[in-house]
Amino acid sequence: MTISVAVVGGSGYTGIELLRLLALHPQVDLKTVTSRSDAGTKVSDQLLSLRGHLDIEFVKPEVDQLAEHDCVFFATPHGICMEMAPTLMAKGVKVIDLGADFRIQNIAVWESAYAMPHTATDLLSEAVYGLPEIHRDKIKRASLVANPGCYPTATLLGIWPLLKNKLINPDNIIIDAKSGVSGAGRSAKIPNLYAEVAEDFRAYGLPQHRHTPEIAEQLSLINDQEINPTFVPHLLPMIRGILNTIYLDIIKPHEHWTDLYQQTYANEAFVDVLSCDKLPNSASVRGSNVCRLAVQKHESKSQLIVLSTIDNLIKGAAGQAIQNMNLMFGINETTGLLAASVYP
Amino acid sequence: MTISVAVVGGSGYTGIELLRLLALHPQVDLKTVTSRSDAGTKVSDQLLSLRGHLDIEFVKPEVDQLAEHDCVFFATPHGICMEMAPTLMAKGVKVIDLGADFRIQNIAVWESAYAMPHTATDLLSEAVYGLPEIHRDKIKRASLVANPGCYPTATLLGIWPLLKNKLINPDNIIIDAKSGVSGAGRSAKIPNLYAEVAEDFRAYGLPQHRHTPEIAEQLSLINDQEINPTFVPHLLPMIRGILNTIYLDIIKPHEHWTDLYQQTYANEAFVDVLSCDKLPNSASVRGSNVCRLAVQKHESKSQLIVLSTIDNLIKGAAGQAIQNMNLMFGINETTGLLAASVYP
Amino acid sequence: MTISVAVVGGSGYTGIELLRLLALHPQVDLKTVTSRSDAGTKVSDQLLSLRGHLDIEFVKPEVDQLAEHDCVFFATPHGICMEMAPTLMAKGVKVIDLGADFRIQNIAVWESAYAMPHTATDLLSEAVYGLPEIHRDKIKRASLVANPGCYPTATLLGIWPLLKNKLINPDNIIIDAKSGVSGAGRSAKIPNLYAEVAEDFRAYGLPQHRHTPEIAEQLSLINDQEINPTFVPHLLPMIRGILNTIYLDIIKPHEHWTDLYQQTYANEAFVDVLSCDKLPNSASVRGSNVCRLAVQKHESKSQLIVLSTIDNLIKGAAGQAIQNMNLMFGINETTGLLAASVYP
Amino acid sequence: MTISVAVVGGSGYTGIELLRLLALHPQVDLKTVTSRSDAGTKVSDQLLSLRGHLDIEFVKPEVDQLAEHDCVFFATPHGICMEMAPTLMAKGVKVIDLGADFRIQNIAVWESAYAMPHTATDLLSEAVYGLPEIHRDKIKRASLVANPGCYPTATLLGIWPLLKNKLINPDNIIIDAKSGVSGAGRSAKIPNLYAEVAEDFRAYGLPQHRHTPEIAEQLSLINDQEINPTFVPHLLPMIRGILNTIYLDIIKPHEHWTDLYQQTYANEAFVDVLSCDKLPNSASVRGSNVCRLAVQKHESKSQLIVLSTIDNLIKGAAGQAIQNMNLMFGINETTGLLAASVYP
Repeated sequence: MTISVAVVGGSGYTGIELLRLLALHPQVDLKTVTSRSDAGTKVSDQLLSLRGHLDIEFVKPEVDQLAEHDCVFFATPHGICMEMAPTLMAKGVKVIDLGADFRIQNIAVWESAYAMPHTATDLLSEAVYGLPEIHRDKIKRASLVANPGCYPTATLLGIWPLLKNKLINPDNIIIDAKSGVSGAGRSAKIPNLYAEVAEDFRAYGLPQHRHTPEIAEQLSLINDQEINPTFVPHLLPMIRGILNTIYLDIIKPHEHWTDLYQQTYANEAFVDVLSCDKLPNSASVRGSNVCRLAVQKHESKSQLIVLSTIDNLIKGAAGQAIQNMNLMFGINETTGLLAASVYP
Repeated sequence: MTISVAVVGGSGYTGIELLRLLALHPQVDLKTVTSRSDAGTKVSDQLLSLRGHLDIEFVKPEVDQLAEHDCVFFATPHGICMEMAPTLMAKGVKVIDLGADFRIQNIAVWESAYAMPHTATDLLSEAVYGLPEIHRDKIKRASLVANPGCYPTATLLGIWPLLKNKLINPDNIIIDAKSGVSGAGRSAKIPNLYAEVAEDFRAYGLPQHRHTPEIAEQLSLINDQEINPTFVPHLLPMIRGILNTIYLDIIKPHEHWTDLYQQTYANEAFVDVLSCDKLPNSASVRGSNVCRLAVQKHESKSQLIVLSTIDNLIKGAAGQAIQNMNLMFGINETTGLLAASVYP
Repeated sequence: MTISVAVVGGSGYTGIELLRLLALHPQVDLKTVTSRSDAGTKVSDQLLSLRGHLDIEFVKPEVDQLAEHDCVFFATPHGICMEMAPTLMAKGVKVIDLGADFRIQNIAVWESAYAMPHTATDLLSEAVYGLPEIHRDKIKRASLVANPGCYPTATLLGIWPLLKNKLINPDNIIIDAKSGVSGAGRSAKIPNLYAEVAEDFRAYGLPQHRHTPEIAEQLSLINDQEINPTFVPHLLPMIRGILNTIYLDIIKPHEHWTDLYQQTYANEAFVDVLSCDKLPNSASVRGSNVCRLAVQKHESKSQLIVLSTIDNLIKGAAGQAIQNMNLMFGINETTGLLAASVYP
Repeated sequence: MTISVAVVGGSGYTGIELLRLLALHPQVDLKTVTSRSDAGTKVSDQLLSLRGHLDIEFVKPEVDQLAEHDCVFFATPHGICMEMAPTLMAKGVKVIDLGADFRIQNIAVWESAYAMPHTATDLLSEAVYGLPEIHRDKIKRASLVANPGCYPTATLLGIWPLLKNKLINPDNIIIDAKSGVSGAGRSAKIPNLYAEVAEDFRAYGLPQHRHTPEIAEQLSLINDQEINPTFVPHLLPMIRGILNTIYLDIIKPHEHWTDLYQQTYANEAFVDVLSCDKLPNSASVRGSNVCRLAVQKHESKSQLIVLSTIDNLIKGAAGQAIQNMNLMFGINETTGLLAASVYP
């Protein structure tokens, strides 16, 4: 089986990573890549790293032309996918949005977070939140997948084994999150310059970051009651990688926390739970689709510290989107996603 | 007034930073720098950055020769200062230990953390914990100052205004700490190599880091009851800088948290409290002796998030040591410490 | 003596570095800082690193107001200084241009390199090329100083001892230059983003970089005949620092090349020539106004390899500008410029 | 066909990269990995990045056990392979040495460069220099391949099209080379620490670097006369990547230098020649086996500037070694080596 694929928004970091992974995917025919700014130029002239791997030109996005594919990925800012998805879906095209348009079910919350009206609210009920480890069955049947944000992916995989078993206090969840700067996208802004980011570290987004409502809604759905976590993102002086340190209060004791995690994810190809004597580092997943986890009980308190790391552009974006595509089209979930991390 | 000074351990990062600051200090005569490994060579042949600023040779440490100075700094691993301090103090020399020998009053805790017997326990009662913003008067009268660790400095300045006023729950203090790699010292170990640290991020030291008992004891002293904080250090891919994100539960409401901080530190030259609309970044203090703070109330919870950043080698080590020396010798506290951060 | 100073263009990297150095200069009263984009805001609100060091607001540039100072620095793109300099100089204000307007005497060459007409050509004869080690006497008498570019500074100091003594072949000078990204300024462009610059290295500016004519003209003036060097700049994944590797063919043998350099610069506070067994590194001058040099004879060829490193924002821009100001106003040349490099 | 493979020295950076590439190679059975220091531990416990990809333990190197494989790679310091190669080859095992033992045919030069006696000189005549683009036919028939050094690989591919056609002056070849720090290996030395390498740049190895004789000998073999190039290596503040800037004097004019390069490498899968309007950057080959080249004619001189970049651990070491293995065993040369560079 070969899936005919288009990528809308191929010149941002998420889009570029999609191109790399799709170009090497053995069951994908990557036929169309759009970019308003680069239309008419060869993709591999803009991106030397793709020379020899992708021999097509950027085109402007046209919904009719996009509709000729089996699957369309949107690696675009919020607001773009919700314009085109209705037409594409009406023609039977499967849509995977790496942007934020369909990540939040609560319309009021979405419109407040993204400061614009939502124009495709009738599709929200069809949209499946594309975290395969939690929603695999729904994803297999989905026509529209909302690919999770990078921070939510690392967070939810880190908390899920505890929360679904009601072992922790949902009212005191603290997520201290750190991300490399590629998470901010390929936008020409002074705060993203090398001379501003290198040899520096800072928190940002306080008092409220855009990813907080997405995390809160997903945690609440797992828990069946509203959860309002504390979420503080920080900017790391590095290109790729997220590592979240999550502080949780135990309400039900358990003998072997690591065992619980390892059992929960025993059949998952892309979640790796470390034994108690090891801690994950972000470079160990850079370039791979793996989420690497560890859980540590505080020595003297009834508290857990969970460490969760992903490559924000792969498991946190493009890799997870392809994992979702694989599921939606009934092919092996790991196809095209088995590269090992490049170290050092 | 000119203070005659010796530095024991001048070839580690803390020692080197001391040399730079002391060489430019207008009331210091830096006469002796010891280094077992580099003895007999010119300091500025080992350290090109000091060419033109310091024209002496490294010598081996000899306690009698050290005793000829007004003040001796120890920038050594734990265990060295406690050997020499008794002799030096008996001869009237003031001692400032940048190592850990006198930072913890509880001998059992110290011996457990540092895995060796303490051989100068009778000096512990004389040792003053050298955090000027909290212990200035004692430091002025001290003959032996235990210069605080870098993590404890950033932590204590961040929590003090709340804890001394009993505004927070002492049982749920969470310190998510991040440090540049110079904090690990100039030791030739694989985990400190560029190819291991760059483009990577990780937590370390779990379940218990050496600085935890120091932080716990100091917090307990402020609070007059035992405090057992959660402290998780992380390694940043950068040279200098610590930024701590501290999560605290409010037990007594307050209208203006930032005002409280600004009032607490109103007369402090080296603590800078930002207004609510700003967050500190580590590069803004790199190369300076400043601790930059911000306090944020969580939007909907009874929780504070304090951000505290320092240059780990200056306010977290060499700069604070000189601030202590200035106080001990009755000269202006800011002498030699007013450099602005180099940005970018 | 106190010099009343204004800085035009205070929000770029060169301007910011000027502000830091001028704020700490004991004989300067920094009264005015302009920035079109930030006018009306406090300088230290934009630049946390200057909090406590500079307590004024950015203003819009107005030539009449600028004319009330003793000295005006232009840290602006080319084209700005040449508009305002005539008025300022007519009123007796000394002008130091850190931009390119007066660096090249040959108008045709300048207009070709900078792609605009030169509008103050009558001032060119008054402009002194502000490299103190070569033109100190002229600088002392100058009203208008063209502060050299960063690449030319490192290059000229590296070649001067050889070229003025006619020891090398002027037809085969190769300058392989490498610069940190702050040399590209604080402009929001994709190639300057952290994710583009980090962990990458490249040449740029081929076949012809803007600094080539400046270097060529200065070399030709020293040599009294036209020199057309090969100059290839590269972008380093770091913030500050230039290191040039210069390849030269010997035409007149000499016994001790290092001695020649050390004698040439024997009285220079800001040029440091290393002995044969050492090589300079850029971090050893980061944060200082020093140019550090080494000269190596090829083992078996009649060839010299000169290594020359500076901090591009200090000796390559702001520091050298202040060195020039000190000379123009008859105060000690090193005032405000004696900071040691911060290492590591 | 499945090749049974052993790696001697699996815990250095070159060895680790071999493990990653071999673990994913579809025609390799990686059965043995040695490491004296890590023997008895699981490879993937030491290297988290290989979890899920390689499930064997490090063992101590035993020549009899190694002899049971079809192919043995040595990713060891010089001196190790020449001890074991005679025994292995006598038993029909193919040997690929990523170290330096068989790179130089001139024994006196080798012994001088590596400061030890060569103990397997009789194998030198059998050893083939493993640069497939130049020596492919010999490699196909070889039992012992000397995998080229990283600097020589980037240099030779950059000069070969010119030198074999006698278009340049062999007496004035200047190679200004820059390498990321992984080229220095995974050795715990202070100069390789993050705090020493980050935000710094320097030349090293002057007056004579170990790779110079290897480059000189290979250039001389191409040219049929002795060549003594100028080679100056520099240390880049980054993990992976080499970029060489090579200056060459034209002795025979040519209309289209880029065409010459493109024709020379037209059938090469791993050499990519850019058109005149583009320059290669090291990140564009990071993680791939590609050497990316550009050639620029100086505007006004009879001089060429060649830019050549590789990933020092792949085309400069482990990738090229596997390319050689593929040739030696008659399988497709590109097998296991087609990953695209991960950008950013």
